[in-house]
Amino acid sequence: MLKLYYAPGTCSLGSHIALEEAGAAYEAQRIDFSKAEQTRPDYLAVNPKGRVPALVTERGTLTETPAILTYVAQSFPEARLAPLADPFEFARLQSFLSYLCSTVHVAHAHSRRGARWADDPAAHVSMKAKVPQNMADCLSLIESLMFTGPFVMGETYTIADPYLFTIAGWLDGDGVDPTRFPKVLDHRMRMAERPAVARVLAVVQA
Amino acid sequence: MLKLYYAPGTCSLGSHIALEEAGAAYEAQRIDFSKAEQTRPDYLAVNPKGRVPALVTERGTLTETPAILTYVAQSFPEARLAPLADPFEFARLQSFLSYLCSTVHVAHAHSRRGARWADDPAAHVSMKAKVPQNMADCLSLIESLMFTGPFVMGETYTIADPYLFTIAGWLDGDGVDPTRFPKVLDHRMRMAERPAVARVLAVVQA
Repeated sequence: MLKLYYAPGTCSLGSHIALEEAGAAYEAQRIDFSKAEQTRPDYLAVNPKGRVPALVTERGTLTETPAILTYVAQSFPEARLAPLADPFEFARLQSFLSYLCSTVHVAHAHSRRGARWADDPAAHVSMKAKVPQNMADCLSLIESLMFTGPFVMGETYTIADPYLFTIAGWLDGDGVDPTRFPKVLDHRMRMAERPAVARVLAVVQA
Repeated sequence: MLKLYYAPGTCSLGSHIALEEAGAAYEAQRIDFSKAEQTRPDYLAVNPKGRVPALVTERGTLTETPAILTYVAQSFPEARLAPLADPFEFARLQSFLSYLCSTVHVAHAHSRRGARWADDPAAHVSMKAKVPQNMADCLSLIESLMFTGPFVMGETYTIADPYLFTIAGWLDGDGVDPTRFPKVLDHRMRMAERPAVARVLAVVQA
């Protein structure tokens, strides 16, 4: 059975929802960041990067959200979570996932994880100060050019939806008013009403 | 015909090499960062993100290196640039691409692109100072745990190879001695000898 390592408030929520939407048989194992469990030897044996998510499969462990989301979509094709038969549409989906992981998540991470990129505490303050602007710039691009609607990629729900839902949930904490992005906010509210999302949130927020 | 927008010294090299390895019919259009061409309206009409690479296809424009690489692999299956029929191996490949774009490239970008994440010039100095350590940490993980050999993913050349080649080429400029990572350095040297890579380098470095 698949085993997902997750932590509340992190990007692992996207993979968690995708597994639930796919109807996958999986176990969810919480990692407590407040106890720095992600840095303990037993977890580093699972994921040497010391991050979540990590998905243990019978063939090995996968890390990185776009890879796990893609694995779920390809392993459960009957759930139709990605346009698997169309290379252009599949690449358009991968482009959205890449933008979220390499630009939007990174912009967000500068609010609390500045120590990754500088040792000077004053630099962390300066990074944190720019997070609202950077997150707003990213979400403006998504709202105006990338979000097709009603779902991220268009008419069909895909693995991009739980990933955007996850990151859009960080806006308030990053000092960005989500009402500036009505399409993304409407998507967030519709996502929260999906039974699979509600089941995952009940577990994660417990 | 496909059209790739590229700039010397950037991650577009990975997509450029992949197109050449695939035997694709494509045109390569240079964007001159020294003239800030990536910020001009005519280029922003191609890629509103103001970055390279961008790949114009007959169905639309793709951005983000992992997406373009995946598109090339899927559009030219006879080139065998990805394990398309094996969801686990395909996800393992996607995981490597994601790590390069969201962690390693981001670590590198803090050397010259600190203004993306902070306005204070002192913060840029602090970020730049940490780049050698962060790049070395990333390459240590790749060298010790992620690089399978003789190619990145194992016996078969994939789209991960030109991407690693591109980023490994930044080590010297980032203040990291590449001889600390003998497997990655050997890979870099073998890659440079490939005819497709040599052809692309001749164009990019002209």
